[in-house]
Amino acid sequence: MRTSTPMRTSIATVSLSGSLTEKLTAASRAGFDGVEIFENDLLASPLTPEEIRARCADLGLSIDLYQPMRDIEAVPEDEFKRNLRRARHKFELMRRLGADTVLVCSSVHPLAEDNDALAAHHLRQLAALAQDFGIRVAYEALAWGRHVSTYDHAWRIVEAADHPALGTCLDSFHILARGSDPKGIEDIPGEKIFFLQLADAPLMAMDVLQWSRHYRCFPGQGGFDVAGLVKHVFAAGYDGPLSLEVFNDVFRQAEAGPTAVDAHRSLLVLQESAGLAALPEPVVPTGVAFAELVTPDADPVGALLRALGFARTARHRSKPVDLWQQGEARVLVNTGPAARRDGTQLAAIGLESPDPAGAARRAESLLAPVLPRRRAPEDVALEAVAAPDGTELFFCATDRPELTSWTHDFEPLDHREPARHVHRVDHLALTQPWHQFDEAALFHRTVLGLSTCDSVDVADPYGLFRSRPVTNADGSVRIALSVGPAPTDDTVRAQHIAFTTDDVVAAARAFRAAGGRLLAVPTNYYDDLAARFEFADGELETYRELGILYDRDADGDFRHCYTETVGRVFFELVQRDGGYSGYGAQNAPVRLAAQHVGRPPR
Amino acid sequence: MRTSTPMRTSIATVSLSGSLTEKLTAASRAGFDGVEIFENDLLASPLTPEEIRARCADLGLSIDLYQPMRDIEAVPEDEFKRNLRRARHKFELMRRLGADTVLVCSSVHPLAEDNDALAAHHLRQLAALAQDFGIRVAYEALAWGRHVSTYDHAWRIVEAADHPALGTCLDSFHILARGSDPKGIEDIPGEKIFFLQLADAPLMAMDVLQWSRHYRCFPGQGGFDVAGLVKHVFAAGYDGPLSLEVFNDVFRQAEAGPTAVDAHRSLLVLQESAGLAALPEPVVPTGVAFAELVTPDADPVGALLRALGFARTARHRSKPVDLWQQGEARVLVNTGPAARRDGTQLAAIGLESPDPAGAARRAESLLAPVLPRRRAPEDVALEAVAAPDGTELFFCATDRPELTSWTHDFEPLDHREPARHVHRVDHLALTQPWHQFDEAALFHRTVLGLSTCDSVDVADPYGLFRSRPVTNADGSVRIALSVGPAPTDDTVRAQHIAFTTDDVVAAARAFRAAGGRLLAVPTNYYDDLAARFEFADGELETYRELGILYDRDADGDFRHCYTETVGRVFFELVQRDGGYSGYGAQNAPVRLAAQHVGRPPR
Repeated sequence: MRTSTPMRTSIATVSLSGSLTEKLTAASRAGFDGVEIFENDLLASPLTPEEIRARCADLGLSIDLYQPMRDIEAVPEDEFKRNLRRARHKFELMRRLGADTVLVCSSVHPLAEDNDALAAHHLRQLAALAQDFGIRVAYEALAWGRHVSTYDHAWRIVEAADHPALGTCLDSFHILARGSDPKGIEDIPGEKIFFLQLADAPLMAMDVLQWSRHYRCFPGQGGFDVAGLVKHVFAAGYDGPLSLEVFNDVFRQAEAGPTAVDAHRSLLVLQESAGLAALPEPVVPTGVAFAELVTPDADPVGALLRALGFARTARHRSKPVDLWQQGEARVLVNTGPAARRDGTQLAAIGLESPDPAGAARRAESLLAPVLPRRRAPEDVALEAVAAPDGTELFFCATDRPELTSWTHDFEPLDHREPARHVHRVDHLALTQPWHQFDEAALFHRTVLGLSTCDSVDVADPYGLFRSRPVTNADGSVRIALSVGPAPTDDTVRAQHIAFTTDDVVAAARAFRAAGGRLLAVPTNYYDDLAARFEFADGELETYRELGILYDRDADGDFRHCYTETVGRVFFELVQRDGGYSGYGAQNAPVRLAAQHVGRPPR
Repeated sequence: MRTSTPMRTSIATVSLSGSLTEKLTAASRAGFDGVEIFENDLLASPLTPEEIRARCADLGLSIDLYQPMRDIEAVPEDEFKRNLRRARHKFELMRRLGADTVLVCSSVHPLAEDNDALAAHHLRQLAALAQDFGIRVAYEALAWGRHVSTYDHAWRIVEAADHPALGTCLDSFHILARGSDPKGIEDIPGEKIFFLQLADAPLMAMDVLQWSRHYRCFPGQGGFDVAGLVKHVFAAGYDGPLSLEVFNDVFRQAEAGPTAVDAHRSLLVLQESAGLAALPEPVVPTGVAFAELVTPDADPVGALLRALGFARTARHRSKPVDLWQQGEARVLVNTGPAARRDGTQLAAIGLESPDPAGAARRAESLLAPVLPRRRAPEDVALEAVAAPDGTELFFCATDRPELTSWTHDFEPLDHREPARHVHRVDHLALTQPWHQFDEAALFHRTVLGLSTCDSVDVADPYGLFRSRPVTNADGSVRIALSVGPAPTDDTVRAQHIAFTTDDVVAAARAFRAAGGRLLAVPTNYYDDLAARFEFADGELETYRELGILYDRDADGDFRHCYTETVGRVFFELVQRDGGYSGYGAQNAPVRLAAQHVGRPPR
């Protein structure tokens, strides 16, 4: 098994949005070595096969597969004759295109016979024709093939046909969706595995054809053990490319460029997981050093932070950035140029990293966009990359002797002491662009080494959100990624910062006393709490008075409340007791509805 | 079985988008008699139970059900004690709300026992408590209930519990999704059926909980025989409301008002189908009398029509509307005020109706918005309603002696003769607003009496469209409803008018000779046709030269080509031979891609 030279990577054009030209450009820019040309993309393209060949060559892409050819084998003889005629046309096309392998899917033709000998006989004839054109035929079992639906069945037919230009194509979706054991792949001679197509998918109990056509995703985004399968394929001696073939309703709409990068990232991680390539080790962040807000007007955010007990403790030496601090919770308020464009939003997160340079190497190896360092010569050199939603992630150290602290760029201010209501950032909640939710989860898991939790549905009055937290092991870094019901303007993608407190009641009272306004929670919610839980005397009345929400699970209790919103941003105070590790998802519909009160729907 | 007085109708608030107030208002305006209050909607509302009660009273809505209460029965004793405590709170709430029936779903609690006697014992205790509050408990089998998942099982437990305040709730989704035979409902005494919840769903092989939570739809929009089930329920003697409970990801985002109207329409049709109420008979249209375009500038559309062989044959007596005609194909070009607002679009369809007044009565009885008649005193009185996408539908007659012809409003122009390339409208293709696709299909089927065909996926380069044609029996009225991959601005929802020709080659040549430009189709498409079909000498070259697309099925052949687009509108020439009844869906991706060439993606 290889461990050093990276595998060749390829992607089927159907996996990306746009015209064929846009797809090819995106695949090349993202670093793929080759492509599978999906027939419909070619048909719809104004480029001739020769022009496509030249375009691919210019872009440094090989054409690894032409696909698909359907309903070829085990059909009545006159039908098969027509199929050979059709195949000859396609082989001529492939010669013009410079593609030397064609995918043949197991037949779904209503007249196809359940007759392996006939199937082998037909495929052998097809292969003989292909050989005349210097073409190889890769026969694949569709999970919903009429008579051939498993990879070992397809291989038996290929073996029986026994032609040098005929081999098999393995597709992780078709194999894993059927629940087949991929171990048997090792019984296939490597040189007879002509191609390997990879796709993951969320585990869903649904019709396999619909599942395949609409919900495939990149390896690592779903629930299949794609890496395990890949190991078996390479153990068998396969030496072709790792190629992605993903049919996904969302990717079809998303910009091809970012999707291609995400796709390529998934293959890099897959190679790492399968032990086929080594990447710089993940460096898991150990805390949130800071959250940075950009705002055109520092006053409303400053007023909220002050009421929460923060003090403005320092100012950046060379930029219009203030540091607000309370305990280990740090918020940067940046009134630089970006703010004037985008309004108040969370623009960056400082992640406490045991090895900032190593974290950046990991990120860079996984195609995270490395951010240019806009800094004055005397500023600390900070390593930063962009997350899929554009949030800047800084890998940094705060007051650790062995590393330069990012705080050196800040000049302490003469200030009053912060309060001690909150002590650190509990979590950051970021609504993701609609087309990038799966990508965001893969990014945070693989680039940052965080763990992804299960996705949960959350009902907003105007549509269903999904939320998927990513965390490190001790919960000192938690990011709740969520996505709204439909693509929307960036300016309404809400973001919030939750601060940890030991006493949410005291913190809420102090906030109010300092002039802060907490989100009003309906009385009905408290009547429901009374029905569901028993509280100490007066406890519920306090929550009701302040707008504190409550949840309890087998591990512990969760109390939380919300400030008003500035721009896209609001704050949350959270008190975790016992081992409660959730985010109060049960309460989210009430919170979302309360935030709509007095605001028009999106 | 009742056949004259309509049933009472109700809708669960969870079926509609928005705040509780918005939901109640929409339900009332759409004509519902009552609502089910979904607990989460109450919890999230700033209104007190008393205020909700008053609001419902003001709106003329009864509160027919409070729901849901979960995981009550067959649980360990200490858990059940907590459940009774919770129930007492909820019964107090219901008293304030004025709701007298509560829904209890069969338990999914991990500790619930498979013990019908215990379940009955617990439900009896719950019912006894409920009775003290004047409340009835309706016990329902969830399709995914831990031990109780079928309606007959739930009924056996209710029967065993034998308490006057305990009955069963039937839910068409839970019954039909499980594949249960609804005939057994007739064995349940009608007075013990406390409630009936109705939902349909598309037939999908998927996890039943996910299916239920995301894909339910209104009766008639899916694949279940909801009317058949309803007949059994009324045969059993049920006399409560017909109530809709629909969890649907799209309806959650759609405006509550139109969704509520669509919902109520579905119940009216359901009553008709189940023989519970009589509506005016459907009057199926027998042809397309005209298609009306509004445009701020009549020249580009006029130039296209002229090149297609149409002649401007008449002008409206009182409005800036020209009639363009060729054979039985008639296009009105309206440069009135609407055009200046919305650009060039298809605004109205004239449907040839055997009984325009009857068609309008049918439409009105099914809540179709009747359009005000903006006409001069001497104009023909035309009956018109609005389709869900806003298209105006006129029920009219063209030159039939027994009825006044709409053409009487037009003054013939001194003109040259139209050509004879096309003779009638083959079909109209209308992209629907994203949130109204299911509604549009139900509307066209029930209001107009058209048949809905299966929905097909069509790949645009930038996302997947779905298309669902509706037709009358002889195909003289065909409307292809489609929907794009995501909600979008109305101005990009494409529309087209297809004209029937006996000789698409001649028609296309004439169009070109008259200066018209046909959509350019990639050469690769024709290479594929050559691979798939055998053509007469020169035939394919002609298609390639003109941009004619081709399809063949078991019934016949289809040849078609497209003009350029003006505003949202383009035209198609279609030649059907043999019994081909489709729309060339196979060619749609090529056409869509060609239409994007030179245009930026949406």
